[in-house]
Amino acid sequence: VVLADGRVLNNLRKLKKDNTGYDLRHIFVGAEGTLGIITAAVLRLFPRPRAVETAFIGVPSPHAALTLLNLAEERAGGSVTSFELIPRIALEFAVKHAPPCRDPLAGSHPWYVLMELSSQTREGLRAVIEDLLMTAAERRLINDATIAESLDQTKALWLLRHHIADTQKYEGGSIKQDVSVPVNTVPDFIVEAMAAVEALVPGCRPVPFGHLGDGNIHFNVTQPPGADRAQFLTHWHEVNAAVFAVVAKYAGSISAEHGIGVMKRDLLPGVKDPVAFDLMRSLKRMLDPQGILNPGKVL
Amino acid sequence: VVLADGRVLNNLRKLKKDNTGYDLRHIFVGAEGTLGIITAAVLRLFPRPRAVETAFIGVPSPHAALTLLNLAEERAGGSVTSFELIPRIALEFAVKHAPPCRDPLAGSHPWYVLMELSSQTREGLRAVIEDLLMTAAERRLINDATIAESLDQTKALWLLRHHIADTQKYEGGSIKQDVSVPVNTVPDFIVEAMAAVEALVPGCRPVPFGHLGDGNIHFNVTQPPGADRAQFLTHWHEVNAAVFAVVAKYAGSISAEHGIGVMKRDLLPGVKDPVAFDLMRSLKRMLDPQGILNPGKVL
Repeated sequence: VVLADGRVLNNLRKLKKDNTGYDLRHIFVGAEGTLGIITAAVLRLFPRPRAVETAFIGVPSPHAALTLLNLAEERAGGSVTSFELIPRIALEFAVKHAPPCRDPLAGSHPWYVLMELSSQTREGLRAVIEDLLMTAAERRLINDATIAESLDQTKALWLLRHHIADTQKYEGGSIKQDVSVPVNTVPDFIVEAMAAVEALVPGCRPVPFGHLGDGNIHFNVTQPPGADRAQFLTHWHEVNAAVFAVVAKYAGSISAEHGIGVMKRDLLPGVKDPVAFDLMRSLKRMLDPQGILNPGKVL
Repeated sequence: VVLADGRVLNNLRKLKKDNTGYDLRHIFVGAEGTLGIITAAVLRLFPRPRAVETAFIGVPSPHAALTLLNLAEERAGGSVTSFELIPRIALEFAVKHAPPCRDPLAGSHPWYVLMELSSQTREGLRAVIEDLLMTAAERRLINDATIAESLDQTKALWLLRHHIADTQKYEGGSIKQDVSVPVNTVPDFIVEAMAAVEALVPGCRPVPFGHLGDGNIHFNVTQPPGADRAQFLTHWHEVNAAVFAVVAKYAGSISAEHGIGVMKRDLLPGVKDPVAFDLMRSLKRMLDPQGILNPGKVL
């Protein structure tokens, strides 16, 4: 890390365990360059998984998806490498506006899960995912499911997931969020946040999707069909505030993975523990007293 | 965290992802109470593994043990939950001085590995460990091995491992270390550090054991048989210095998991990057200007 005064902090150690003093690394990671500039890093590599199974699953509700996640963690623990929640509307947007995408299941389901299991053990993963889906079907957690039979089918399922964000633009304006809440509260959060924004802007189309396994939902809200885009976007702050109120209820975060930058800088004092915010300012003063590192960001 | 000035930092969030500002948590974790007093924590729980397989393996050398670890990571990835290296002398101490311990293998092997695989998947782990040991035997990485057939046998293997540290005291004085190096350099580190201490104190008995999978070796050195305990312990600093020189060669740590405390405080400036050491002092001044938190420790 190059510090504001030009000194270089050399923290390049390839150690899994090191308890010689304070952990300086995490001060800089995620600080968006406001405390120092990271110029090199040690990365740990893992062997490529020898078995991967991918399933696309129709589920009746986010609550059923959460119960399915818990079942998957119980049955396949460290092998659950993706668990993405997708609402029907997001699938419809992708299929309509990104031509290579197609609906992999017959019929219409209100929610979907894209689940990936990965393992270093070559054998047995297929049986694990089949048993898991069988049990989930018996418990009425899922409506329907398909398991990718080839690399092409796997890619097709991920293509659908990857086209969710960009195909929203063809439906008009969208107000976008990147929030997280404790994993076991995601379904309640989604139901309540959807109700809040629908009350605020009648006819708007919430598109909450993302990393259920991480408690991280991209709570995007697309304008009502045919509405005026600019007029809809005037609701930006109101819609944010309504969603953030539900985030606060569940002790969540208004920025799960995208950071603070400029856009959320003025919101930070309102959501952060006041002592935590003071410590952040003290750290900034300690490491960058003249405010020359990425000025105007985060703090 | 209760801070030196009495303020309370509330960081109790059950989130997997939160990118709202600086990561304050890791400043306090591992700081040995010198920057604040942690009074509460959120813990994440995982389901208990549904399958566990434990093997005790005789290997010809630490280098063979490392190659076996790499093979296990390739074949069983996230399932390798323990990989402990044990020298013959440590097994002999345990069997001699802790009567319930017995040697689980026929014959004498220079080194041993206690390997544990754990999985949420109920089926298949036994076949994985058997295939792994079979391949390792074909590649001449292992001399002999036994897989625990019951919970009692599993406990007996771990008992042996747990009696390594305490049975050293029956053999006289020991100079103890807790060091780490990059995992792939552990075998070279062991060979070189053993040669260094044997040159320094002829007849001394190095007992390097521990967490090969973490690159963390407890490099203990027991006095020569029949030597004077007090006289042997006068070599404490010399033996430390000889081992730490090899640690430094491999860019390792002089305290992998036990921390700095009082005992290693004066060593810290000599092994730490000078800028890192300065930043540690700045953090201490920022958070505890009067030096009232655990005074005399770490810095």
